[in-house]
Amino acid sequence: MTASDLISFARGAPSLDIIDVAGLKAATDAALTQDPGGALGYGTAIGYPPLRKLLAERHGVAEDQVLVTNGSMQADAFLFDQLVVSGSPVVVERPTYDRTLLGLRERGADVRPVALDLDGIDTEELAALLDGGLRPTFAHIIPNFQNPAGYTLSLAKRKRLLELAEQYDFVVFEDDPYAQIRFAGEPLPTMLELDEGRGRVVYASSFSKTVAPGVRVGYIVGPKELVARVRARATNTYISPNMFAQAVVYQFCVDGGLDRSIAKVNAALAERVATLCAALAEQLPEAKFTAPEGGYFMWVELPEGVDVARLLPAAEERGVTFVKGTDFLLEGGASTMRLAYSGVRADQIAEGVGRLAEALRSLRVAAG
Amino acid sequence: MTASDLISFARGAPSLDIIDVAGLKAATDAALTQDPGGALGYGTAIGYPPLRKLLAERHGVAEDQVLVTNGSMQADAFLFDQLVVSGSPVVVERPTYDRTLLGLRERGADVRPVALDLDGIDTEELAALLDGGLRPTFAHIIPNFQNPAGYTLSLAKRKRLLELAEQYDFVVFEDDPYAQIRFAGEPLPTMLELDEGRGRVVYASSFSKTVAPGVRVGYIVGPKELVARVRARATNTYISPNMFAQAVVYQFCVDGGLDRSIAKVNAALAERVATLCAALAEQLPEAKFTAPEGGYFMWVELPEGVDVARLLPAAEERGVTFVKGTDFLLEGGASTMRLAYSGVRADQIAEGVGRLAEALRSLRVAAG
Repeated sequence: MTASDLISFARGAPSLDIIDVAGLKAATDAALTQDPGGALGYGTAIGYPPLRKLLAERHGVAEDQVLVTNGSMQADAFLFDQLVVSGSPVVVERPTYDRTLLGLRERGADVRPVALDLDGIDTEELAALLDGGLRPTFAHIIPNFQNPAGYTLSLAKRKRLLELAEQYDFVVFEDDPYAQIRFAGEPLPTMLELDEGRGRVVYASSFSKTVAPGVRVGYIVGPKELVARVRARATNTYISPNMFAQAVVYQFCVDGGLDRSIAKVNAALAERVATLCAALAEQLPEAKFTAPEGGYFMWVELPEGVDVARLLPAAEERGVTFVKGTDFLLEGGASTMRLAYSGVRADQIAEGVGRLAEALRSLRVAAG
Repeated sequence: MTASDLISFARGAPSLDIIDVAGLKAATDAALTQDPGGALGYGTAIGYPPLRKLLAERHGVAEDQVLVTNGSMQADAFLFDQLVVSGSPVVVERPTYDRTLLGLRERGADVRPVALDLDGIDTEELAALLDGGLRPTFAHIIPNFQNPAGYTLSLAKRKRLLELAEQYDFVVFEDDPYAQIRFAGEPLPTMLELDEGRGRVVYASSFSKTVAPGVRVGYIVGPKELVARVRARATNTYISPNMFAQAVVYQFCVDGGLDRSIAKVNAALAERVATLCAALAEQLPEAKFTAPEGGYFMWVELPEGVDVARLLPAAEERGVTFVKGTDFLLEGGASTMRLAYSGVRADQIAEGVGRLAEALRSLRVAAG
C-alpha cells in the first residue's frame, strides 16, 4: 500500500473536489482589479474593512465588534491570551476539540470538562458545578456539529447557558466554524444573537469550511472593549492579517461564490454521511453513532472493551485512519473514535469502513 | 486640505505604482492551476513547502532551518517568545524600528541600545559593554538600509559582530527585510552566510518590500533546533500560515515576477532618493542626512534646538507628515526625523519638502 491508498477519516479538512478553485481564481482577479491597494497594501489589525463590514452586517453588530484574523485558531489564541491566566477555571465540553484543550492547558487554565449529550453540553451538570462554587472565566462551546462529536446544542440549552452565564458572570465563547455546513434540519439562532447585545458572548467563526482552509480567514465578534484589546495585541503581533486573502474572500462572498460553495459542500457532505452510516450499519453493526445534521465529524462508540488505541495501528496497517476519542478527552473514552468524512470522497467510504471492520476483527482474532 | 492631499513620509510601505498587480493575478492563476490542493488546503506551520525549499536554496541552508510565516513581524514575535524572558538583556541599535522596541519591552526585555553609525552599530561600544559584563540574549541588528536610519552595516563590522557573538555567547538576530532593495553600491554578504553554519545567527526577512505587504509572507532561517521550537509554537497558534498567499508568492518567484518587481521597485526608489536629496538641499539646507543606497528610509537631523515634536503638527497642518526620531529611541533625538520615500511618488516629493520647510519656518516665526 502506498500513502495515496490511505483512506483518512482523521483530518477535519475538505477534499479538493468540494473547493471552488475556479471561483477563487475569478474572485482574485476581481479583488486585484477593484481594490489593488486594499488587497496588496498593509492593512490594520481589524482585517480587510469591507469584509469586516459584511460580517458585522451578517451578525447584526457594530463594525468595531468584529476583528478578522488569520484563521479562527489565531483568533482563539488571541482571546485565550486576553482571558486566561494560570489557574483560570474554563469550562469545556467533554469531549472537545483537541487544539482547544492544548491551547488552554498551555496557558495554565484549570480545564473543567462537562458532559456533552446529543443535544449539547449538559447544562444541569454545569449548573450543579456553578452551584457548588465553580466560577469559570468562560465556557468554550462548539454549538453546531461539535468537533469531535458532531452534536448540536439545542435552542433550550442555548438559552439556559446564557441564563447561567448571566447569573454566574462568565463569558460564553461560542466557537462556531461549522454553522453554515448544515445539510439537514433547521438552523438555530446563535447565542451571540440570543444574547441581544448584553456582552455575554464572544463568537468565533471562519471561512475554512465554506471557502477553503488555505485562505486562513477567521474572525471574532464580541464586546467592543474586548475586541479592542485583541486588536491591540494583533497589531503588535503582525501589523495586519492577510489582506490579499481577505480581499479575495470578500469578493468571493459578494459575487455569490460563497453561497454556491456552501450548497456544493453541503450536498457532498450529506451524501457522505448517508454512505458512511449505511456502511457502518452493514459492516460494523456493533458501532453506535448518531448521524450528524451538518459539519465534518461523527463520533462512534465501539463496544466496551474495544481498545481503540490498539485498533488504530491495526487500521493503519490496513490503509485506513481516524482519530482516537481519547485525544479529545482528559480521561476516559477508550472505546470511542472520531470519523471525519470531510476529506473522504463518497466512493471511498465503504472501502474505508470495510478496512476498519477488518482491523476490528483482527483484534478479536488476536485476543481469541 | 483633504486627506488625499496629505503627502506622507511617515509609513514604510510601497506606493501602489511599484506593486506588480498584473503579475500577481497571473501568479494566482498559475498557483491555483498547478497546485490547488497545496494552495487551498491546510498546510503545516512550516509554510508552503515549495517556497520553503526555494528559500533554503537561496540561503544555502537545510530546509528544516527555514520557517515561512505570516509576515516577518509574526516571525519576530515567535522568536521573541522563544528567546526573551522578563529581564533578558537585548542589544538593539540606537535608533531602531519602533515595533521592535515595543515587542521587546512588552516581553520585559532589558533593552540595551548601542549607537548606530553610518556604517552600522558601533561594535566597539558594544565590545566595551560586553567587556563590562553585559551578557545579552541576542543583538537585534537591521544590517541593510536600517529602519529608521537607512544606514548599512559594513563588512568589517559584520565580521566583528560575529566574533563578539562567538566570544560572549549571544545570538545575532539579523532582521533583513530590505536586503534586495539596493539601488546603489554593492551587496554585502549576510551574517547568516558569514557565520558558516555555526548557529550564531537567526535571520528574518520578508516579501513585503519585494512583492507586496498585503501578502504577509515572511520567514526565518536559523539553527534547526530553534526553528523546530518556533514551528511548534506556530502550529499551536494557527495550524498553518496563509498557504494561498505563499503559493502565489512562490509562483511569482519562479515565473520571474520577483526579479522584475525588484528591478522596478529599485529604479523607482533610486529616483525618489535623488529627488528627495535635491529637494532637501535646495529647500531645507539646514537638514543633515546621508543618501541611502537602498531601502525605504532616510534619517534627517535638523539643527540642535529644533523641536521635532512641535514641527510635526505644524507640518501636518500644511499637508505633510513623517515620524519623529524620538519614536525610535528610548531617549534623545529631539531634532531628528525619519523620512520614508517608499510611499511617495517622485512627483510629490518636492512639494512635500516645501511644506516641511514652511512648517520649520513657522516655528521660527512663532519663536521670534
